[in-house]
Amino acid sequence: MAIKRSKITIVGAGFTGATTALFLAQKELGDVVLLDIPQLENPTKGKALDMLEATPVLGVDANIMGTSNYEDTKDSDIVIITAGIARKPGMSRDDLVTTNAGIVKSVTEQVVKYSPNCFIIVLSNPVDAMTYVAHKASGFPKNRVIGQSGVLDTARFRTFVAQELNVSVEDVTGFVLGGHGDDMVPLIRYSFAGGIPLDKLIPKDRIDAIVERTRKGGGEIVNLLGNGSAYYAPAASLAQMAEAILKDKKRILPSIAFLEGEYGYQNLYMGVPTLLGANGIEKVYELELTAEEKAALDKSAESVRNVMKVVG
Amino acid sequence: MAIKRSKITIVGAGFTGATTALFLAQKELGDVVLLDIPQLENPTKGKALDMLEATPVLGVDANIMGTSNYEDTKDSDIVIITAGIARKPGMSRDDLVTTNAGIVKSVTEQVVKYSPNCFIIVLSNPVDAMTYVAHKASGFPKNRVIGQSGVLDTARFRTFVAQELNVSVEDVTGFVLGGHGDDMVPLIRYSFAGGIPLDKLIPKDRIDAIVERTRKGGGEIVNLLGNGSAYYAPAASLAQMAEAILKDKKRILPSIAFLEGEYGYQNLYMGVPTLLGANGIEKVYELELTAEEKAALDKSAESVRNVMKVVG
Amino acid sequence: MAIKRSKITIVGAGFTGATTALFLAQKELGDVVLLDIPQLENPTKGKALDMLEATPVLGVDANIMGTSNYEDTKDSDIVIITAGIARKPGMSRDDLVTTNAGIVKSVTEQVVKYSPNCFIIVLSNPVDAMTYVAHKASGFPKNRVIGQSGVLDTARFRTFVAQELNVSVEDVTGFVLGGHGDDMVPLIRYSFAGGIPLDKLIPKDRIDAIVERTRKGGGEIVNLLGNGSAYYAPAASLAQMAEAILKDKKRILPSIAFLEGEYGYQNLYMGVPTLLGANGIEKVYELELTAEEKAALDKSAESVRNVMKVVG
Amino acid sequence: MAIKRSKITIVGAGFTGATTALFLAQKELGDVVLLDIPQLENPTKGKALDMLEATPVLGVDANIMGTSNYEDTKDSDIVIITAGIARKPGMSRDDLVTTNAGIVKSVTEQVVKYSPNCFIIVLSNPVDAMTYVAHKASGFPKNRVIGQSGVLDTARFRTFVAQELNVSVEDVTGFVLGGHGDDMVPLIRYSFAGGIPLDKLIPKDRIDAIVERTRKGGGEIVNLLGNGSAYYAPAASLAQMAEAILKDKKRILPSIAFLEGEYGYQNLYMGVPTLLGANGIEKVYELELTAEEKAALDKSAESVRNVMKVVG
Repeated sequence: MAIKRSKITIVGAGFTGATTALFLAQKELGDVVLLDIPQLENPTKGKALDMLEATPVLGVDANIMGTSNYEDTKDSDIVIITAGIARKPGMSRDDLVTTNAGIVKSVTEQVVKYSPNCFIIVLSNPVDAMTYVAHKASGFPKNRVIGQSGVLDTARFRTFVAQELNVSVEDVTGFVLGGHGDDMVPLIRYSFAGGIPLDKLIPKDRIDAIVERTRKGGGEIVNLLGNGSAYYAPAASLAQMAEAILKDKKRILPSIAFLEGEYGYQNLYMGVPTLLGANGIEKVYELELTAEEKAALDKSAESVRNVMKVVG
Repeated sequence: MAIKRSKITIVGAGFTGATTALFLAQKELGDVVLLDIPQLENPTKGKALDMLEATPVLGVDANIMGTSNYEDTKDSDIVIITAGIARKPGMSRDDLVTTNAGIVKSVTEQVVKYSPNCFIIVLSNPVDAMTYVAHKASGFPKNRVIGQSGVLDTARFRTFVAQELNVSVEDVTGFVLGGHGDDMVPLIRYSFAGGIPLDKLIPKDRIDAIVERTRKGGGEIVNLLGNGSAYYAPAASLAQMAEAILKDKKRILPSIAFLEGEYGYQNLYMGVPTLLGANGIEKVYELELTAEEKAALDKSAESVRNVMKVVG
Repeated sequence: MAIKRSKITIVGAGFTGATTALFLAQKELGDVVLLDIPQLENPTKGKALDMLEATPVLGVDANIMGTSNYEDTKDSDIVIITAGIARKPGMSRDDLVTTNAGIVKSVTEQVVKYSPNCFIIVLSNPVDAMTYVAHKASGFPKNRVIGQSGVLDTARFRTFVAQELNVSVEDVTGFVLGGHGDDMVPLIRYSFAGGIPLDKLIPKDRIDAIVERTRKGGGEIVNLLGNGSAYYAPAASLAQMAEAILKDKKRILPSIAFLEGEYGYQNLYMGVPTLLGANGIEKVYELELTAEEKAALDKSAESVRNVMKVVG
Repeated sequence: MAIKRSKITIVGAGFTGATTALFLAQKELGDVVLLDIPQLENPTKGKALDMLEATPVLGVDANIMGTSNYEDTKDSDIVIITAGIARKPGMSRDDLVTTNAGIVKSVTEQVVKYSPNCFIIVLSNPVDAMTYVAHKASGFPKNRVIGQSGVLDTARFRTFVAQELNVSVEDVTGFVLGGHGDDMVPLIRYSFAGGIPLDKLIPKDRIDAIVERTRKGGGEIVNLLGNGSAYYAPAASLAQMAEAILKDKKRILPSIAFLEGEYGYQNLYMGVPTLLGANGIEKVYELELTAEEKAALDKSAESVRNVMKVVG
């Protein structure tokens, strides 16, 4: 009759995985397990320990452990998969897809073995396809396997709009459909500052520039860092999705969801507005699209399907 | 007659500096400027931008900018100095001290030029000596130049005690004097869990082991990471000290303070219990020490003086 | 060269005033002074002390004092005026207006005497007129005298929409213009759930019912309580506006602002979308209205003018 | 396989009960049910609704409902009992005890019927005896029935010490045993500011004055308010205890616990240091007492027993 603490596992202890662990710890959502491959067990333990040593100062109670042993993930409520390699020079896109698909499949099988009732949130790249891989490998119903891309894309969009208008990020909303990055389909007519449609506040060319910057948002960070890619905003996005589920917040957030007819697509994981709560994806919101929007979404879907073909 | 936003500059955009920026942004304490050398301007900008893009999701308003230009730090209220190199293989300790003293001196001069009224918090290694260097280079009164080591040391100590007893870190307090790491002088009789003296809860040999682990706490993380050193807990410590000053919280925290007779030392920067508020170090608490404690503190002071000799 | 703590005074220590003090203390925005008339000095001190005794448990540092002496409000950054009587049985509306205008005028004069540079936020009823009174009595520029009604009205609207859709309140936005309560002019086309226009999610008759419930939102609470009126949501609204200014958040929030031509009105305090930052009301957003919306807003303005006539 | 939201019921919707609901809602710990007798159903609903309408502004998701129907409390994880009458003029202490014992017994029976697995936290007065009544009426094991007095007493003590020293409340700890108020047994040697024993920082006569003020802390507020008693600090204390259990924080907090031999007492509910976690009271800490402290505690125990005799 004791209260049960929640448990969240993050697979992949790179910068994104580790920063996600930090944000989750700060929210006091439950025990956090940070897992990476045996070769990286020590650095993974080191990051977890360093974070744990920050908790007295941060004023939070959070068990954070680093491990390479899936047994330690047993009975997780949420498992976040950030594992996968980055594209290396000379590597074809198809090689990347094939390699990461193998990693995500293997990770998912291990995860499911120890946490048959968990929710899975996928960030591994290319994320639409990798969410599909996790879905298949898990055998879980679609509401329990979710991909992240839209929260991050809208966060970037909101940041750029807030800068443009010099207003609080809290009062700017954005709305995207479709794939991540270049394939993103922004719906400006559903994006606002203080409830005011953006096109009444920002000239069209500036909006276009913001959309373009958002599309290339990941690349902008990669170019600046010179070595590595963004992790603060991706990690915040993952933590927000996990929180929405664990607290049953019923947040309306863009997720990569399995489509079975919605927006006219079948058997496809793609970014759509969803309701996130205690049952994972509790609903997919279908909006009427203009012809132009639908065409862009079709292109985005085509893109995802092309990647899927590589996975097989 | 407008309200003035606070401004905090962090010099050194490595992992500790960047993570400090993140914690400060989350606290909404004011504008955050992350500065590093011109060669690292782009990565510095990249980290700041990535963090900024997380703010809509984190639900905070925080201007975070990356720069290599000290003009951007103008009128900072607080400047945190994390700059400096890590000891490389084959490098003597004296070389490290000399190099970092040069860096800290140069950084401080730039900082002071643009923010003549700021408070300076130093983390650069070896921190007692580097705080002294910043004090001299700034020409600031002693209350406005502060070093960090004790908040981190006690955070580690508290973490290990909390684990030992399986209790909340929030209910464990620790107390250290003297230098960082090996030179740390823990006062177990002033360390408690829920107000209960630790020696009534933990056998002496286990307390000794925890003290030893705390002393070697930095090294433990270095060994686990394999490449690099701790940054989460150091960053949390810096952010807490900055918050105590900016909000005039009157926190009693261990700081590296300039001693002019306290504990029998003159002209020395060393870790002591202090009151941190709107005037920086508002007070140094002097405690009666046992002969054993005083001897350990003397040894710690000697250690600091030896490093100081290198600085000259 | 010390950091200056912010200071916020709340005039009127009834439930709304006291709860506002609590929310401000929880935000650690600065010192809080709760002031009421000399006859109520003891209860005011009692509330402030009780709150102060909660701070160790809430984990915040906040000086909260109760007083009846305006000297204690000296150099406040923000002053929130909640003073005024409630309408009693047999009292005409005009009597209420006249009485409260006298109270607000007198309070404002005292406030300004000790805090000539402050920002004033008014809640006293009827709030549009009372904000005008405070503006005149203060001699302050219009950006520094602000009334609260729209944050509360939209909060109620958002609550009812969130319940209707069973979604998070965080994802629902609302938009109102004009006076408080019955005179409120809701702009449904600028109200969203997850960025989706409400009319695509909720049938028209249900939206109408929600609007009507929002208009009568204050009365609904009065009827339920039987004795007294709402204070949690009004207090949260006041605290949010104060925070927006003190942290220079640049929030886009509905405020009662002084209009000089905006929306076609002159010399009138009325609810409009505004930008709240370090300069108080930094901007009034003007939107194109439909003929129907403009007619409703005219009616609302007429209502305010009728009250103003009583004030003279 | 959905995530289960936690549920917390508060019986008694007076100021303390309502404020406790607010603090719990702010912590997003789960659904909150505020219950009072049928005659007060409307005001209870009114307070809950007003609070709910504050959530969009406070930025939290929290179902808060007001009710007089115990069915609505079904499957609560935690039930907080604040019900009971205040002593009226001319009423003997024994009449008060008898009346409140009847109320607490009846409330507990209803609570247990719908939430057989819950944890019960009692605040009703006189709280030691009422916790015993709830224990008996529930048939629950002792770890699941807990009384609150020490968190509040130490909060007041900490507040007064922090004021005396002008330091942060976060750095002051206090330690009390025994009954509430006059019967409180403070252990000054286990009370600290920044880890420094209070008797090294504050003269003995001032400490004595602070202890005395703490003992009379409830009365001080009653006298100031003129009508009613403290509720902010009591509510914060209740919310903290509930949070410790729901998040399994393993906090070391003073609780009113059932003693079976600890400190030499049998079959008695009295204030002692405890460990609060997922199993409620997971441990009672036994400290060696001086003869003087033991005598004071015996007196406190005698006091509780005298009240217990009235209950029968």
